[in-house]
Amino acid sequence: MKKIMNDPNRVVQDMLAGMIAAYPNELKQIPATTAITRSEAPVSGKVGLVSGGGSGHEPAHAGYVGKGMLDAAVVGEVFTSPTPDQIYEAIKAVDGGKGVFLIIKNYTGDVLNFEMAMELAEAEGIQVDKVIVNDDVAVEDSSFTIGRRGIAGTVFVHKIAGAIAEQGATLEEVKTVAEKVVNQTRSMGMALTPCTVPAAGKPSFHLEENEMEIGIGIHGEAGIERKPITTADEIASELTEKILTDMDLNNNEEVAVMVNGLGSTPEMELYIVNKKVNQLLTEKGIHIYKTFVGEYMTALEMTGCSVTLLKLDDELKTLLDATSEAPAFRN
Amino acid sequence: MKKIMNDPNRVVQDMLAGMIAAYPNELKQIPATTAITRSEAPVSGKVGLVSGGGSGHEPAHAGYVGKGMLDAAVVGEVFTSPTPDQIYEAIKAVDGGKGVFLIIKNYTGDVLNFEMAMELAEAEGIQVDKVIVNDDVAVEDSSFTIGRRGIAGTVFVHKIAGAIAEQGATLEEVKTVAEKVVNQTRSMGMALTPCTVPAAGKPSFHLEENEMEIGIGIHGEAGIERKPITTADEIASELTEKILTDMDLNNNEEVAVMVNGLGSTPEMELYIVNKKVNQLLTEKGIHIYKTFVGEYMTALEMTGCSVTLLKLDDELKTLLDATSEAPAFRN
Repeated sequence: MKKIMNDPNRVVQDMLAGMIAAYPNELKQIPATTAITRSEAPVSGKVGLVSGGGSGHEPAHAGYVGKGMLDAAVVGEVFTSPTPDQIYEAIKAVDGGKGVFLIIKNYTGDVLNFEMAMELAEAEGIQVDKVIVNDDVAVEDSSFTIGRRGIAGTVFVHKIAGAIAEQGATLEEVKTVAEKVVNQTRSMGMALTPCTVPAAGKPSFHLEENEMEIGIGIHGEAGIERKPITTADEIASELTEKILTDMDLNNNEEVAVMVNGLGSTPEMELYIVNKKVNQLLTEKGIHIYKTFVGEYMTALEMTGCSVTLLKLDDELKTLLDATSEAPAFRN
Repeated sequence: MKKIMNDPNRVVQDMLAGMIAAYPNELKQIPATTAITRSEAPVSGKVGLVSGGGSGHEPAHAGYVGKGMLDAAVVGEVFTSPTPDQIYEAIKAVDGGKGVFLIIKNYTGDVLNFEMAMELAEAEGIQVDKVIVNDDVAVEDSSFTIGRRGIAGTVFVHKIAGAIAEQGATLEEVKTVAEKVVNQTRSMGMALTPCTVPAAGKPSFHLEENEMEIGIGIHGEAGIERKPITTADEIASELTEKILTDMDLNNNEEVAVMVNGLGSTPEMELYIVNKKVNQLLTEKGIHIYKTFVGEYMTALEMTGCSVTLLKLDDELKTLLDATSEAPAFRN
């Protein structure tokens, strides 16, 4: 296993220290936790936004902490949910008196721990609400999930909920728009090579030299099918068509597109995928309002990509375009 | 070889089509070339900035085309210099009447072809000047270079020369500040795994499972030493110390730091490296003004990283902080 690290059991602590060192004026770590908040947290009179989950998906989620996006990210061990007490500390740290909103990717551990933290905070008199992101159309239920998984589309929820919260929206208004984004976002991914959790020391699954897996999850959970590697055009088509069969998307409607790299895929290849995604949507009369190509939600050094579509309306377009100062999402 | 592509001989064309599809309002391709310009090129009364080189280093260089940075990037085949005629077309396309400035990474092929294009343009009455970036302290001369190689530090030249050009500086003023950045920028890299040029179909070099190479170039050119993988702290120290022995950097002076991923390195590991780089500089009394962690100058799917230091003064700080709207460098 080739990794640049010191101690496989300290990668999260070292990473967070390196992040705070990189953005000392923008981010701070809640003492004795692995949670990161904006340096000015709590922001008085603003709904506080908290997300997080296992690490290994960088820049998600700590890279999305900043003005216009999240107030805090709670960082678990690699591919492991953060504990309820850490999430609870983050909720307290960002409570500016207007309530706290949790954005949770749909994994059983995350949902359980965030909900437990929510109860702890509510018992302390903090108003808390949540949304669960389940954008991955590949599979119903999985090794870590009841229902669909939450993957790269989560970043659109961060961005848009973050923008409306920044404008002073109430907790209910934040929830309404976050649920709209969740309802209108669909994703699907694929991989060519596995990834290795540092503390495990060996790849979490195996793919043959000529094989890819369609519908794979961001922790290497099984997808739909393993088959010989096809062309970028065929991969882009398969992902996009599967997403479209699940979306209520008509001629002349508008979308945001995200072509997300899972960690090791050269940006060149992501643009090659985007070429075909763009062409397919355009042929169907779907208007592409904005495109995001890059690494937004990774799976350590997995090679592969995901495609996400977000159906837009005027409200969502305005919020998507709003300023963000988060390190990993400058707008 | 596992890659997401259609035809190994068409990766550059497909990538550029995917980029234009992603940023149709921001970028355009010069017809019948592989050069990308801002959509509004030429900008009247502004020095036009042109860079480029072989592809495979994405987001460099096309991702840095945009207001506040480059006016054009000329994209060669993978790890291959663009031809003089393509560079010449880019120079003509961005000439707004105030001259054109070329930012060239120091590789023999790039220097030769950019200089040939410069002569062609000058013969047409376009005023052209240039800077050659040679930030890599690892080796004097290499398989592709006389003198030092240009690597990730080139992005600082794009950013700062781009900012002053945007403010309406003359060609001479742009050159002066670009040369200052080159003189005050030093980098060094290392790799854990090789990369594969699509048309070649096999890795360009081999490293043993427990081996790394210090000082390697962004095309896999030989570095200083192959040795067993050490810790992130030791890697960060070795790169930083080698840079510092070559820089005139005193106590209380200020730098910008870039920890750059070569393609496959999880962002987590780049932050782990940054932790140590930050600590080393701080211990020496060097003040870190700004830190950049991410993929700025890659080598396809090579695993590894580079560290870059840019010594700052008030002028450079202001220009570094100026607005950039390039897709891969939002400021």
